Order: sequence, then structure tokens, then C-alpha cells
Amino acid sequence: MSTDRICGLIERMNPAEKLGQLQIVFRPEPHDAAEIVRAGVGSIFWPRSAAATNELQRVAVEETRLGIPVLVGLDVIHGQRTISPVPLAQAAGFDPVLVQELAALAAAEARSGGVTWTFSPMADISRDPRWGRVVEGFGEDVHLTNSMVRAMVRGYQRDGLASPGSVASTAKHYVAYGAPQGGRDYDGVDVSEHQLRNVFLEPFRAAVDEGVTAVMAAFNTVAGVPMHLNRRLLTGVLKNEWGFAGIVVGDADGVRNLLPHRVAADEADAVRLAYEAGLDLEMGGVPAALSDAERSLIDGARLDDAVARVLALKERLGLFDDPYVDEGAEITEPTADGRRLVRRAAARACVLLRNDGTLPLASPRRVLLTGPYADSTDHLGAWTQHFGARAGTIADELRLRLAEATLEVIPGVGFLSDDASGIAAVVSAARSADVVVICAGEPSALSGEAASRSDLRLPGRQEELIRAVAGTGTPFVVVLESGRPLVVADWIDHAPAVLAAWHGGTEAPAGIVDVLLGDEDPAGRLPMSWPRSVGQIPIHYAHENTGRPATTGGTLTVDEADVGLHGPDNLQDKYTSKYLDLDLGPQFSFGHGGSYAAFAHGEPTVSAEQVALADLDAGATVTVSIQVTNTSGRTGDEVVQVYVEDLVASVAPPVRRLVAFERRTLAPSETAAFSFDIGVDQLGFWATDAAQPAFTVEPGLFRLHIGATLATTQPIDLWVR
Amino acid sequence: MSTDRICGLIERMNPAEKLGQLQIVFRPEPHDAAEIVRAGVGSIFWPRSAAATNELQRVAVEETRLGIPVLVGLDVIHGQRTISPVPLAQAAGFDPVLVQELAALAAAEARSGGVTWTFSPMADISRDPRWGRVVEGFGEDVHLTNSMVRAMVRGYQRDGLASPGSVASTAKHYVAYGAPQGGRDYDGVDVSEHQLRNVFLEPFRAAVDEGVTAVMAAFNTVAGVPMHLNRRLLTGVLKNEWGFAGIVVGDADGVRNLLPHRVAADEADAVRLAYEAGLDLEMGGVPAALSDAERSLIDGARLDDAVARVLALKERLGLFDDPYVDEGAEITEPTADGRRLVRRAAARACVLLRNDGTLPLASPRRVLLTGPYADSTDHLGAWTQHFGARAGTIADELRLRLAEATLEVIPGVGFLSDDASGIAAVVSAARSADVVVICAGEPSALSGEAASRSDLRLPGRQEELIRAVAGTGTPFVVVLESGRPLVVADWIDHAPAVLAAWHGGTEAPAGIVDVLLGDEDPAGRLPMSWPRSVGQIPIHYAHENTGRPATTGGTLTVDEADVGLHGPDNLQDKYTSKYLDLDLGPQFSFGHGGSYAAFAHGEPTVSAEQVALADLDAGATVTVSIQVTNTSGRTGDEVVQVYVEDLVASVAPPVRRLVAFERRTLAPSETAAFSFDIGVDQLGFWATDAAQPAFTVEPGLFRLHIGATLATTQPIDLWVR
Repeated sequence: MSTDRICGLIERMNPAEKLGQLQIVFRPEPHDAAEIVRAGVGSIFWPRSAAATNELQRVAVEETRLGIPVLVGLDVIHGQRTISPVPLAQAAGFDPVLVQELAALAAAEARSGGVTWTFSPMADISRDPRWGRVVEGFGEDVHLTNSMVRAMVRGYQRDGLASPGSVASTAKHYVAYGAPQGGRDYDGVDVSEHQLRNVFLEPFRAAVDEGVTAVMAAFNTVAGVPMHLNRRLLTGVLKNEWGFAGIVVGDADGVRNLLPHRVAADEADAVRLAYEAGLDLEMGGVPAALSDAERSLIDGARLDDAVARVLALKERLGLFDDPYVDEGAEITEPTADGRRLVRRAAARACVLLRNDGTLPLASPRRVLLTGPYADSTDHLGAWTQHFGARAGTIADELRLRLAEATLEVIPGVGFLSDDASGIAAVVSAARSADVVVICAGEPSALSGEAASRSDLRLPGRQEELIRAVAGTGTPFVVVLESGRPLVVADWIDHAPAVLAAWHGGTEAPAGIVDVLLGDEDPAGRLPMSWPRSVGQIPIHYAHENTGRPATTGGTLTVDEADVGLHGPDNLQDKYTSKYLDLDLGPQFSFGHGGSYAAFAHGEPTVSAEQVALADLDAGATVTVSIQVTNTSGRTGDEVVQVYVEDLVASVAPPVRRLVAFERRTLAPSETAAFSFDIGVDQLGFWATDAAQPAFTVEPGLFRLHIGATLATTQPIDLWVR
Repeated sequence: MSTDRICGLIERMNPAEKLGQLQIVFRPEPHDAAEIVRAGVGSIFWPRSAAATNELQRVAVEETRLGIPVLVGLDVIHGQRTISPVPLAQAAGFDPVLVQELAALAAAEARSGGVTWTFSPMADISRDPRWGRVVEGFGEDVHLTNSMVRAMVRGYQRDGLASPGSVASTAKHYVAYGAPQGGRDYDGVDVSEHQLRNVFLEPFRAAVDEGVTAVMAAFNTVAGVPMHLNRRLLTGVLKNEWGFAGIVVGDADGVRNLLPHRVAADEADAVRLAYEAGLDLEMGGVPAALSDAERSLIDGARLDDAVARVLALKERLGLFDDPYVDEGAEITEPTADGRRLVRRAAARACVLLRNDGTLPLASPRRVLLTGPYADSTDHLGAWTQHFGARAGTIADELRLRLAEATLEVIPGVGFLSDDASGIAAVVSAARSADVVVICAGEPSALSGEAASRSDLRLPGRQEELIRAVAGTGTPFVVVLESGRPLVVADWIDHAPAVLAAWHGGTEAPAGIVDVLLGDEDPAGRLPMSWPRSVGQIPIHYAHENTGRPATTGGTLTVDEADVGLHGPDNLQDKYTSKYLDLDLGPQFSFGHGGSYAAFAHGEPTVSAEQVALADLDAGATVTVSIQVTNTSGRTGDEVVQVYVEDLVASVAPPVRRLVAFERRTLAPSETAAFSFDIGVDQLGFWATDAAQPAFTVEPGLFRLHIGATLATTQPIDLWVR
């Protein structure tokens, strides 16, 4: 549609029709949906089939005065029919190409039923695993999240919204929703402009750069200002500074929620403040309830701008030309290709937290399968809906694959129950097994929206089950499914092998068994640090340099202090940044993970030991490389990670930050060169001391760290002059 | 000294002499101190006696070229000889007059030995009890902290630094040191300008308004910028905006710590950046190590300004006229008056967390005293030194006071030990006692600087001891000593009476026994919320209004969600801000506490139901009042608290915030009117959306809540038109 035609439509619209276009209704019952569309609401949630969608479009086109088709939204978060691993698990795969394929699969299924718009990806950096929505994003790291957000947007939107099987995507939740106080969902977020620019805004900037269609305002405040009326961030940064031309959509009831936030006097006030701040489309029912007088209070030019953005999206989707989908082509069940893809993704998301060689299982004869996930079908994870293809059980999959072995299945304990009476039978069976596979974890309902936990240990009596099996002396493996990092300190040192499998989706059981039996290499890496204790949160690898860094953990003593005269002095271990009652650092850091294969890394090299700032600014890059050899007898994956350390800066920099990574499969004895370009994007940061923040590279010494995990990287220096 | 004389001195000084004046050396050994002063260092830590101080002053005056006396600093945090309750406990007393008296006592003792400068009060708002230095401040609330900071400054500085027994005071740690990430001491602080202005800066503004002599730069960063070189906050806000004319002093090695912060290339760079940012006096040894060339890099006018500030303080203290103290008048032991004062303070700091009537103890015949604090002398708390007067034990004090009773003392368990073998003997003795007093807690060394904890339960096997005593059915009382809020959820519901006694100082045993026996009323109030779980931190009462407030706690279930189509919807309890696994709110909120007496509150009244904004700005106030009657048969204290709730604001306001309080003693049947003036200071907040933040009252409806605790306040409305 030409701008002229959009302008023409807008000229013909009355205020009520305009506001109708600026609203998406969620939770309509099927019998209400047509009436809502008939009343002029321009966007609506999916009515559950291609036929129903077509009928809604028909009503919109034929039974409204202006005949404008509707946008059809749906939360397709990690698959609609064929469920992929949860986004946090996808991040663990460290494989953006695979993430793009998964998003494309989801988009094809959704669009076939008439969905035109998904509210994904979540671009929120999350560093507090108490928050349930960590499951929906890509973890703690900015670069990893940027990569995954870009991959997902590309997968959903393909070669543009006019291409077949594409849907409009939404970067959410703008901004800093991942940092609610105490990890309590919806609680306030207080961050500085420094953090906002360098951490929380970056994945949204990446999404906009990648062409994301919409950006969703977050439920939270930032520095006291609820995002649904945050003009500085919605209009100032997103639209004006970044030039975002798409739609700013509200989250469910986010405008109405301005009342309990205590920043709006009534609903009309809330709507006015939100639109004037830069919101384009409200999710909920508030605008329709306004009177003519209340509507007239909203700035007219702002309304027209919002309407133009909505109509432009309808045009880009081709809805004005043909709003209907082919009902015969609707995909309502997973395809074989789709199943293969999500199965592979489920396996590649697995992180080998520790392994003494018990994994992969080597033709065991007598296997005991225990734990609440042994015979559970709860593998889909948070944010799936009734039309998502159910998963089977690990028990059934193992039965199928270990046909020669004796498989005994005794869950022993439930997910949440306080009943430990079944543990005795497990112990008895464990004593006569060759190996025990304990499938433990938190069920899907314990992560996701409004699912914050204050205690991150395995719920119920699962830890007791693990300790009981450990007591038998029989080798065992723990498979952990979860939507977040867990606290495992009370038992993990007793476990020979532990696999973090997250919630893997429709084909999770097959993917997990592929890994257990060695058909796939569990070479995922942690996208979030796993804390030693909930009392250690927040903890993340890219923390700011303190003036008193610790080199040892703490100890509890009753020594008397005489600090006034004899200290503090940071030469003493006592006066460093740590807890008295914890070892240093997390249980497992970001980027941690193993492989069934083994790899040797050569010395890192750089293409130049120094580079001029002017050359960098003109686009020059330096290449850092390393040779990696698979020294094992089996094919496996290595994930090479590159971190930057800034040795002197104008603002305390993070101790290290990831700037590049690559996952690659190597055959036995194969050697491969991994190379990464380092330029302005990798060396710069947002300086926020001036009125207008600027992305800046400061000259000086940078140390690049390259290797398989943070613990094993090797340094190489680069001077920027 | 006239400005002319200071200017004259500065004109005569060479660069090395100037830098010598801008340095305080800590941790000098006695034999080094004279040499340090002789070398030109202008401030030094206390050399441990009046005679030694006089000798240092003699060296300064007689053996340095310019004869400038020295400032003598010491961390007199809660008493030098006679130890008061820790500052957090002083805050719990809700009695600023008493706090002022305690500071005056400390100042008199310190000055008598030649100390001229204390590094107190700590003005850091602290909302994370994991941080060990919560003990050194006044808790989570801005108004309570402001009141206590002002009282302490008045107590230390009396009627001015020339008055007898006064010392210069220091508001520390500027700024936001109380919010280190994860509660890990020295870790980075990331807060918005909104939080900085409305929470963390306020107590410093109060201190400056009260005439505090020095402000200490904090170890932490704020938004990435270490405070020791934070020009915007040191010079821009503190000196320029607030007009602070005193000394900005560094914290110990804070300038050297700029290297590990990664913001200085070397020590000379660190010194230059710090002084140029507004630091006046470095604590440590860095400036003296600079070469002439390195010195010359520092801005000369800035150095002269800093030297003038230091010399002006020496003049205000009268040191140029007479730097010596009367050695015969040195106070080296507590006086009877001093002991009475700190004993009263120890009792008034006690907070009655719960009580079913077991307290006060009514002439018991057979008493069992148990727990690691039963016969411990560790009552002084963090930040005391070897010359602080030791405390006795609760056992000895009880023996003295319960001469008619049979007192058995069996500690049962240690503070930290994993040995629970002594519990059996306690249980056996408890069965034949009338009442058991369990003295539990964390020893002093577990709070204070560099004493962060990730687990806030009672350490060692103390919880087991309490549960074992509870199992006997004998009535019991728990006295908790600690330097912070503790997590008590696992046992407190089984305890008939629990008293939070903090670390009460030299006379803690007597003060605690005064309360146990009913000679004093434990009517303190909590200055920080006590969390249910460490996983609930941070939690504080004045949290920001969320858009989805919870009205119930959470539940763990395995229900399947279908959120895309059926929710979220904040009409459902599910989609609110909380944890799935915790009840709502803290275990005990800020302001919580009881009394042995009972009080009835009348209806609150206001002197006007509405007030014009212009009148407020001109200084008008409205008076809110309530009548309180002691309905019990015993004299006791009520603490009336007034909170403000802002119903619609431009920025999400806190749910409530304390604006006034008063503690008063009422005789049986006595009725008293408590009245409080409400004006601009109570109704306003810092608006930070403009380039220059402004303290603002927004018109609209305010609800005042007045009563004994947050749970029992009564509302009354006030309109600002």
C-alpha cells in the first residue's frame, strides 16, 4: 500500500475507528471474536483454526465500514504445533542457525492457520534465575542474546513478511523486564542509563537492526516510570534515536495496569498517557471503553502516526491483497521433518554439567530409570498451548531404544510431593542395576510468567532421592529438566554425570535418549550461570570490576576484629568482595559445558597486535584465530568462545564479556581453525556521561580470551592506539 | 584562622607539603607514627593514648617546616571506651534524642584522648541484609536514617567543633554503598538517578544540612563510575549543588583500589583522577609515593582548594591555638553515667518480635539459660576495638538478678560449630525448668565490613537447639543477638516469645535482663524488614507500586497453563508480583514491634483536609494527630509512625513511606496526643526527568497512615490542590 492509500484511509476514519485499529483483544471466546472485529477492533488473538481466522477476516473486510483486514496475533514462543526446546535451551545450543530454523518452522505452522503476528522473541537479558521468565529468553549474556534474537527474527520473518510461511515478530519486553527486584515478576526495575545502554537495550537494538516488526512495552517500571508511558524510552530512544518504524505494542492489560502503578487517575488518563508516550497498539480492552470526550483528549497527530504504523504492517503482510489462508494447507500436526528438527534441537540444547565417563551409557544390561521425569510427559516447557504436540516419556523412549536391556521404571518421588515413601523401592532396585538414570527437575509450570521461585533447589523430595541412589554405590546419571538454572550444591558432588536438558519440547524424550546413548553430543553451553545458593543471586560472569576482587572464598569464624587500627587493608583476603559462607563464583559459570569428545586447542593468534582507532572507526577488524583438534575417538562438537577484557577504561568495565562464539562438529583427529573478526562492535561500549550516549571505543590495551569455556580460555593482547 | 592565614600558609607550601596535607595514614605502628607526621602527612589515625597524641602534635608543630598540627582520626562507630548498641540497634530504638546522647558520650571519650575526627555516622540506606555493614547504619528507611544521622552528627559535633568533647563527624559512604550487587561488600552498585536522589542521597543531604564536617567517598561504583573519581557526585552534587564546604575523605585505600576497578593506569593516574573529581583527602599511602613530575599533573587550583578545606577544619577544631589535650583528663574507662546511658540504650533497642505473655518473666523459680550467647561476652558488635570496654555475660547478670531462683546454664551448642551433642543435656534440663531462656544469634564477627552472608539463618546448630527446647513443652523465650535481620521462618512459629536484642554493647547483658524481667519495656521497632527467606531479598516496605500487586502468596502446582489464549489477566491471582513458594511480604516488616503494655489509638485527625500547593511551598504545614491511651496496668512505650501514600503521581511512588515518628512513655491509663506536621518535606519527592533534578510536590490526593505499625495504621486523606 502506498503512503497515499494509508493516508486516504486515515482521512476517512473517525476517532473511534482509529482507536479500534490501535487495540488488540486477547482472550476472546470464539463466539465473541466476530463481534469484536465487527465492532472495529483491528487486531485480535488467534481464533484457533484457519477456517475461524478466515471468517474473522471476512467479517473485517465485508462487515466493517472501511473493510480493513485484521492482524491475528498469537504467542508462538517456541513452536505452535511442533514444540521446540524452550528459548533458554535454544540459547544453550550456541547455534543461531538452528534457532533460525526452529523459528521458521514455528512461523510456517502459525501462518498456515492464519496467524500473522507472534509475540516473540523475548530479548530480555536475565540475570536472576528466581524470575520465572528466564525460560523465555536467552540468558544472561548480551552477545549471545543478540545473536539468538537476530536468528529468531530472521526465522519468523524469513525474507520479509510477504514471503510464504512468515509471521511478524515482536521483540519483548522493552525494556529491562529481566531485572525485576528480587526476581519477582512485575516488580519494579531500577537500573542506571549505563546498564540500560550496555546491557538491557542492546538486544532490542539488534532486533530493530534485524528488522523486527514490533516491540512490546514491558510491564515493569524503569527508574520509576512504567514502560507503558515511558516517552523517553518508547519515543526518544526506540523511535527517534533508532528510527524504529514498526509498532510498539502493549503487553496484556499493561495500560490498565498503570492505575495500580499509581501513575494514572483513570483509564482514559492511562490510554492518553500511553499513546502520547509512543505506544501504538494496546493489548486489552481499554481504548474501546473511552467516550468521545475522552478520545478527544489524545493528541491527534500521535494517533494518526500509530494508525499509519498498524496499517503499514497489514500492507507488508499482504492482507489488503488477500487476507485469507488456504484452509486445506493448514498444518495441524507436526511433520516428520519438523519432528527431526526439534529432536536435534533438544539434543543440542543439552549441557553436560559433569561426567566421569558414566555417559554415554555403554550398552547397559540392567537399567533403573527413576525420578519424577521418568514417566512424565511434561517436557514442553512454559508458554505452550493446548494445540502444541504432546511429548511422550523418557521411559517409553528408553524401552524402545534399549530393547536388549532390562529396564525398570520406578519414579520414586513426585515433582512437588512431600511423600518420600517411594525412595526405599528405588534404593532396592538400584542395588541390582548396572546404572541408574535419575530424571529430575522442576515441572514446566514452575517457570514462565508469574512463576518466580525464592528457592531454586529441586522441589519436593527429589534431592533425597538422588542422595539415596548415590548411597547405593551404583553408577548413576542425573538428567535435569528445568526452565531455569537450579541450585544443585547439596548433591551434585556425589553425582558421576549430570546433564542439563531444560524443557526440550515435543521430541525431548528422543533427544535426551539420543544423548544418553551417545548418538548426539551434549555440547551445549550454559546461557546463564548456575548459582551455588539462592543467597548468591544475582551472579553473572560479566560483572563489573570491583576495587577489591576476591581470590578465595570466605570462611565463618568468631575472630575478634580490630579493624579501626589494623585494617581494613585489601592486601588481606578478608577485605575482598565475597560471602563469608560461600566459595567464590557460581556453581557453574556462563559458557560451561562439556562434550563426549575431547579437544586440544593451539595457541591463539591475532592478525595484528595493534590497530589504530581511526582504522577501527572506518570499519577495520582484527582476526583472532585458534586451531582446535578433536583428540578423541568420537565425533563431537566444540564451542569456541571469545571474550574481551578491557584493562583501563573511563568506566569500570565488566571483568570479561563475550564477543564471539562458534559451535562446530569435528570428526576424530580433525583439526579446524576457528576465526573471529574483532572490530568496533566487539571493543566498544556505550558511554553515558554526556547528554547523548555514544557507542565508543577507548584506546588502550584489550586482552582477548579465546577457548572452550571461561575457565580454559587463553589470552592474547590487542592494542588500540 | 582567617582565610588570609590559610591562604598565607598555602602560598608557603610546596607541592609535596600540599599533598601531605591531603592524606591520612591508617594502620601506622606506634613507632612509625612520629616519622610519618615528621614527613609531612597532615592527618593520621589515633596513636592509642592522649600522651601519644600530644607527642604527635608536638612533632607536627615543632618538627615540620610549617608547624601545622595534625588531624587525628579514629573509627569511633558506636563508642570508643563505653560501647553503645550497634547503629542498627540504635535505629531500632526510634529515639533520636538517645542517639544524640550516645554520640556525645563517644565524642567526649574520644576527644579526651586526642581524637579529633570520627568516621561516623554511616548514612547508607541498606535494604539487603546479606551485606554485613547493615549493622553500621540505620536500616532501610530514608526518614528514619535521616533522623538518626542528624542526631549522631549533633551528638558528635555538639555546639560546634570548638565546644568541649566534640569531634568532627563523617557521613559515609557517599553514596549508595548500601546497595552492592548480591549484598557482596565492595561489589558494584547500579541505581538510577531516581533511586539515587530519592533514597541514597537523602541521608547525606540531611548530614550536610546538619553541618557534618566530612563526607567519605564509598568503595563502590555508581553506574560504573567508582565513587573515588566520581566528579559528578563528589563535585557536582555534593559540593556545587549542596554547597558542602567540608572535606571529602577517601575510604581506606580507595584511591589505590581504582586500579583493580580498571579505571586508572597507575597510582599517579588514580591520585590525579581522584583529586580532580573532588576528593580532598586520601586515606592510605598513595600521594606520598608520587614523584614531582606526577604531582605536577594534578590541577593546582583543585589542590589548593582541598588544602584550604583541610586547614579550615584544623582551625575549626582549635588545633592551631592548642593542639594538645589534658593527659590527666583522658577517659580510659566507662563512667557510671556512661554505663547507665548505654544500658538504657541496649534495653530500648530491643524489639519484641512476638510474645504470648511469656515475657516479662514473672518471678520464675527454676530457669534454664541456654544457647551460645548464654555465657558469651560477645555483645559489643562489629566495629569495636581492643580499648572498648568488654561486656559481661547474660548468665552472670541473671545470676545476680534472680538470686532467689535456681538458674542452670547450659549453652548446648556453639555459634558456628556443627556439634549438636550438647542438645540432649539441654532438653533434659528444660523438662524440669519453669522457663527456658535461649540466647541465640550470630556473633559479632559475622556482620560488619567484609562480612556478607549468603545464608541468614542462625549459624551452626542453633535452630536445632530451639526446636528441641520447643519439643519439651516448657515455656521458653528466644533472645536473638545479631548485626542484621535474620531468617527465622524455620522455627519462629514455635517460639512463645522472641526478642531481637542486636549487639547491645558494653552493658548489653544488663539491658537485656532489664527487659527480660520487665524493668524496661522492649518497645523498639525494626529498622529493616526481616525476610522470610534469603531468596526474597531485597524486600523493603517502601517498595514501588507494581502494576500487578499481589493480594495472596503463591502456591507450587503442576497445573498446565494455556496462557496464550486464557491469560495472563491480572484479575487472576496467578498473574501478580510474588513468589510461587512464599507467602506475601516479609516475616516481619519495617516498623514491627510490640510492648509489654497495651495501647488504644483513637481516630486520626488532620488540621485541614486540604491545602494549597502554594501555601505548602510557602512553608505551610498540616497537623495530623492521634490520641493514644495506655490501656494496660503497666508503664510502657508506644511508637507512633506516620506514613504517606501518594495516590497518583508522575512516577510510580512507593506504596508507603515513613515521614514522621515519635516514641513516648505512657503510664497506666495515661492518654497522650501525638501530633506531626506534614509539609513539603513530607509530601515531596525528587523529580529527575529534567536535566536538573528538583524536589517537588505534585498536587492530588495523599493518604496519611498513622498508627503503631504498618499493619495497624489508620488512614486519613489530605488533598493538595
